Amino acid sequence: MKKLIWPGSTQLAPVPAVLVGTGGNGFKNNLITIAWAGIVCSDPAMISIAVRPERYSYAALVQTREFTVNVPLASQAAIVDWCGVVSGRDHDKFAEKHLTAAGGSVINAPLVMECPLNLECKVKEIIKLGSHDLFLGEIVAVQVSEDFIAESGRLDLERCGGVLAYAHGHYFNLGECIGHFGFSVRKKSGPLVRK
Amino acid sequence: MKKLIWPGSTQLAPVPAVLVGTGGNGFKNNLITIAWAGIVCSDPAMISIAVRPERYSYAALVQTREFTVNVPLASQAAIVDWCGVVSGRDHDKFAEKHLTAAGGSVINAPLVMECPLNLECKVKEIIKLGSHDLFLGEIVAVQVSEDFIAESGRLDLERCGGVLAYAHGHYFNLGECIGHFGFSVRKKSGPLVRK
Repeated sequence: MKKLIWPGSTQLAPVPAVLVGTGGNGFKNNLITIAWAGIVCSDPAMISIAVRPERYSYAALVQTREFTVNVPLASQAAIVDWCGVVSGRDHDKFAEKHLTAAGGSVINAPLVMECPLNLECKVKEIIKLGSHDLFLGEIVAVQVSEDFIAESGRLDLERCGGVLAYAHGHYFNLGECIGHFGFSVRKKSGPLVRK
Repeated sequence: MKKLIWPGSTQLAPVPAVLVGTGGNGFKNNLITIAWAGIVCSDPAMISIAVRPERYSYAALVQTREFTVNVPLASQAAIVDWCGVVSGRDHDKFAEKHLTAAGGSVINAPLVMECPLNLECKVKEIIKLGSHDLFLGEIVAVQVSEDFIAESGRLDLERCGGVLAYAHGHYFNLGECIGHFGFSVRKKSGPLVRK
């Protein structure tokens, strides 16, 4: 259990790797790949994305105060990677990757129809932190591809290869399902026991 | 590609499932499991954790303004789950799960020696959002178990079964490595080509 001590760095893992969509209200539709994303509140449902001000999407985020978070499949890793390497200044990412942009149900920013899960978000707060500005967004609607709904009516991530994870510079799919929340205290076929 | 539209909810996936350590400065050492965590800035390295004010760890977080983020192995899923179900009011989580608490190199909050990766964090800002308060912390040091360092001197997550992921109420290990950042534009054995 010997430990090496390193300077502070962004070693949290795994993190999501999502396509953030901006556009509408006079802005060109664009996608930016974001791994610095996380849930920040359950009620209201809120998400954070961290974006460098020099990014092409930044102006649209600040001025439209809307974005979509499109959760990709592991099979879409090459598209996600490409959208994180090239800039919307030089590329029409939707057209070049044959992605279908659709307006949100509540907002005008584009969602990626090919991603199984799309979160429609409204910017509530922007916090300057250093290299990145933190956008806190309320998740005002969620869209789910019908293919991802199990017979029970619940979301079934296992279908279509599951979602994409990012850890220390590498993309992964999810492996084995180890258990559900509460499995460590749940008796077989019994209710959750909160000790 | 038919979509169902749902109300806004916290559907981002995958997210990390980490053990957040609090204590020192007169507070009992405790662990709280957090999935609402994310990187929020690269320079300075910063992380966010979202915590309900009614949680036992909340007072220590606010008053010590220190915490550790302990990234667990997939094989530690049952411990992570248990620490998210029971309260530090009733349990000594370190003792009951035979975990070794060590003081940080910079802070007094306890890190979990058995976790491969430990982030030492100082609270910079607390933002009230609703059900959760968002703690923005600077990552002031990182500790890594020697077993996780490859011959190259780099972090090697593949060892020891990899880290734990959480997606829609279920724990997963990471599966196949699909590629590294930039793989979509990197020529074989060539440098990264930014288009």
